[in-house]
Parts: sequence; structure tokens; C-alpha cells
Amino acid sequence: MTATITPAWIGVDWGTSHVRAWAISASGTLLAQASSDRGMGRLDRAGFEPALLALVGPWLHGPTPVIACGMVGSRQGWVEAPYAATPCAPLGGPLAPACSDDPRLAVHVIPGIKQLHPADVMRGEETQIAGYLAQNKGWDGVICLPGTHTKWVHVSAGEIVSFQTFMTGELFATLTTQTVLRHSIATDGWDDAAFDTGLADAYGRPEKLAGRLFSLRAEGLLHDLPGATARARLSGLLIGAELAAAKPYWLGQQIAVIGAGALARLYVTALAQHGAPATQVNAEAATLAGLTAAYRQLKG
Amino acid sequence: MTATITPAWIGVDWGTSHVRAWAISASGTLLAQASSDRGMGRLDRAGFEPALLALVGPWLHGPTPVIACGMVGSRQGWVEAPYAATPCAPLGGPLAPACSDDPRLAVHVIPGIKQLHPADVMRGEETQIAGYLAQNKGWDGVICLPGTHTKWVHVSAGEIVSFQTFMTGELFATLTTQTVLRHSIATDGWDDAAFDTGLADAYGRPEKLAGRLFSLRAEGLLHDLPGATARARLSGLLIGAELAAAKPYWLGQQIAVIGAGALARLYVTALAQHGAPATQVNAEAATLAGLTAAYRQLKG
Repeated sequence: MTATITPAWIGVDWGTSHVRAWAISASGTLLAQASSDRGMGRLDRAGFEPALLALVGPWLHGPTPVIACGMVGSRQGWVEAPYAATPCAPLGGPLAPACSDDPRLAVHVIPGIKQLHPADVMRGEETQIAGYLAQNKGWDGVICLPGTHTKWVHVSAGEIVSFQTFMTGELFATLTTQTVLRHSIATDGWDDAAFDTGLADAYGRPEKLAGRLFSLRAEGLLHDLPGATARARLSGLLIGAELAAAKPYWLGQQIAVIGAGALARLYVTALAQHGAPATQVNAEAATLAGLTAAYRQLKG
Repeated sequence: MTATITPAWIGVDWGTSHVRAWAISASGTLLAQASSDRGMGRLDRAGFEPALLALVGPWLHGPTPVIACGMVGSRQGWVEAPYAATPCAPLGGPLAPACSDDPRLAVHVIPGIKQLHPADVMRGEETQIAGYLAQNKGWDGVICLPGTHTKWVHVSAGEIVSFQTFMTGELFATLTTQTVLRHSIATDGWDDAAFDTGLADAYGRPEKLAGRLFSLRAEGLLHDLPGATARARLSGLLIGAELAAAKPYWLGQQIAVIGAGALARLYVTALAQHGAPATQVNAEAATLAGLTAAYRQLKG
């Protein structure tokens, strides 16, 4: 017999490709979690409620607040939650209520953050930042959130002062699967020394990056460069170029890297090699803490 | 009634995505041309002969030499034509005979060129370079061949001294169709001023390129950046980064840009803005002249 899950509220991280949900008790205990691949990118507006019910239906025994973050709040999402503008607190705008037919659902979507000049946007990361700040009161510094679109975020006095997005993760995925480099790059495997080489090369001479990419293919053809080595070197090249471009963010700052294990570790390692010690923060814990902070704000 | 085409020989440019053929008379007159999308990438080894016959069959009235260049000579091509190594003449290695069942076909494939350190390869461009040098005896300088994989080639005393490949064309195509930028970049349209802005930005601060890409998406979302403007700016950014990285090639050199109209003009314009006048050369004419030079070499 399965125990009945009766959450006080439900937290949801609804991105482009995936959705994850957590059932939380009144005291903040995690009761259950669930996830699916019904991300925002696969749904039209009418598809969000069924997708959510498929995931959290068994947890609903009466009206239940749902706090959601991520692309679910974009123009193509369940409800558009207009961006708050920097400088602002990470939970800087009002939660947007999403319409649902099921009376048990009371869905509230956390707005993303925009920066007008230079233009930039985030959706989802603001919740992780809120979570990190909730757990580290008074923390000032720079938060790096590696992912498909890595964010560098300057935080001061509880506010997001400025931020910048790098498409490093998407570039890596696209280069290794959609271009001629796919013939020379393995789909997995790793080589620490090759990562370090690529990192040092692109960080030291970022202006040369445009000319480094095809070398991975040519070395594969001419010198049998192993696919795992090519993979790690490309990762190093792209992260090295990002660190060079993001230097005004991280230089001389206190740094926290919020992200999933392996990728976040790469950033921490890369930063360490350039004399910038960074703290690695568990992404899921930060998301949950941020959703919790938003829920408390809602409850007033 | 269609006049019968009776070429002395046939030239073929067989790339990854397309194949083009020219029927040439003994005196070098172009008699006819044909093309199809049966590029190397779509064919297995047994597919090349039927694809060629479908294209040039009507021109065959007896044994006819066929001179082919491009990816048809790669490991995945009709026959592997081993690379000649730099420094070498652009037609620096022996033509590779390709097997055919049809006795009218005598196919010879021009080898590509490799550079061992730093590793790089070309297939097809060597023929255009040979053609340009055949038409410009004694020319020394740098040849830029823009395309999917743009090449910068240092030529001296009739030899290819060194070269470097940039994936600029493939990056542009991939970024505009396979990444989040596709939502903000038009499939056509142009904006000269936006190209110039991107060019100046990336050329002047190439280390910032990694951070410029997502701006195109964010400006689309926040400031309604027109899709054609985003398209032109991205092109400028990528070509600007390439010019910065390729500077050791072109600075202070005589420059020829061999390529198709619009793209070659962008490179000529971009170089002119950095004080480097370049001559634009018709790509098809260069290919034909190169195939002709190879045919003459074969005839001895």
C-alpha cells in the first residue's frame, strides 16, 4: 500500500524540456517528487494543466497552492509572468496566477528578471538565486548558474544588480551534434588534461577561439585525436572563452556556482585555475529553497 | 531538337551537399553544365557512378576523362585521394582514379591538402586556388575562400605555405536554425548598419563574442529587435571574430577573396573596413580554371 501524500503546497520547476514537482509539508519537509519530459517547449497553453495533473494528481486532496518557476511563465507558457527589471530582488515581481479548471489547483508563477541595457533575461535562475540568498543572508558576490544558457549574476544587498547570459551549454550541444565536429567528438567520455588545455588556450587567447574549432575535426582526421579528448577540449575552449568574457563579473568577487554536479564542478575547477575560488551549490536545493521563499511571500 | 554535347572532358565539383558538372571542349569552351543535390553526404560508395551518370550521361559518346574535386575524394567519397602535405603546389599530389563500370567514364579525383601542424585540411579549395594562380601567374599573397568552412591560405611562389579553417558559415547556419536564437533571427533580410556594428564589436573585442550571442535573443524579447537586423548583426559578429583571429594571415598582405557573390562581398567589405583591400574572384570561374589545370596536368 502506498502512503497518501498530502502536501501543504507543491513546488514546480517547469523548464523548456522538463518539468519537476515537489510535494512539501507545512513544516517544509519534502514528501515526494515527480518529473516528466512535458516541458514548456512541447505544450500549448491548454496543455499545461493536464501535464501538471498527470504529475501531481495523486497529491491533490483539496485546494493546494502550486508555486512554479521557469519557462512556464514565458509568453509561450501557461501564463505570461512579466519580467521584473534589474536592479531588483530575485523574487522582484508579483506572482502571476495561472488559470486552471481543476478547483484543487491554485497555480502561481514566479516572474523572470530582465535587464534592459545590455538586454538580457532569465526565467528560473531567479528562483535559485532567491533560494541561495535565503540560505545565506546578507551574501554579496557573483553567482554563476551553468547550464544551457549559463548566467553570471552580480548580487548585492539582496538584489540582482546585473547579469549576463552565455550560450555555452547550447553551443557545446549544438557543435557536438549538428556540425561537422560531430564526426570527431565522442558522445561521452572525458579527458581532464584536454579540458585544461582547451581552457588555458581559450582563456589566454579568446580571440583565437573562432579558429580552434575546426582543429578538432582536422586533428581527428590527421592525428587520430580520440573523440573523448576532442569532447573535453571543446568544453574547455568554450568555458575558457566564457570565463574570459565574464571576467568583469567574477574577478575579485566572492563566487557561488549553482548547478548540477559535473558541469558545476567544471566551472569551479576552471575558476580555481584562474585564482578564483568558488563555492559549489546544489541546484535542486537552491530551487526548493527559492520556491519555499516564494510560497512564504505568497502566504504573507 | 537539342544539340548534341560532345565534350573533350568533363569537370566536376562534388561537395558534401551538391554536385556540379561542366562539359568542356578541346579548346576549353564551356559547352554545357548540370547540377544536382546528390552530394557526397547522401551517397555510399556505390552511389557515385549512378549519380554522375544521371548528371552527365547525355554528354557521353565515348571514353571521356572526368576531373573531379571536393569531398568526392574523401574517405567517405568515391575514392580516397590522399592529401598532399603543405608546403606544396595546390595541385600537389597525383590524381586518384575512381573505379567505374561504365567504360565511357575515366574519373580522376584531385587530392585535398593537409597541414600537419596546426592540423588542418581542405578538399575542393585547392582546385580554386590552382585556378586563381593559373590565371594570375606569380601571384603571392593570401587567399580567403568564404563558405561553410572558410579557409585563409598563404600562397607564395606557387605553393600553399599554410592555411587555417574557420567554421564561420556552419556556425552561422547552426546558430540561426538550431538554437534559441532562431526565434529572434529572420531566415532572410539584411541590415548593413547592423552588420557593421557586429563586425566592429567582435573585431575590436573578440574576447566578448561568447557574451554577445544571447543578446540577440534578449533584444528580440525586450526591444523588438527586427529579425533581419539580428541576422546581419550575427553575421558581422562571426565574421568580425574570424577577421580578428585570422589577422596574422591577412595583415599587410595582398588578398584575394574567392567565393559566391553576396558572402564574398561581405568579406571584401569587412576587410576594407580594416584597411585591407581585397580582390573579389568569381568562385565558379576559379573552379573551372583549376579543373582545367588538373586536366592539362593529366594530359601531360
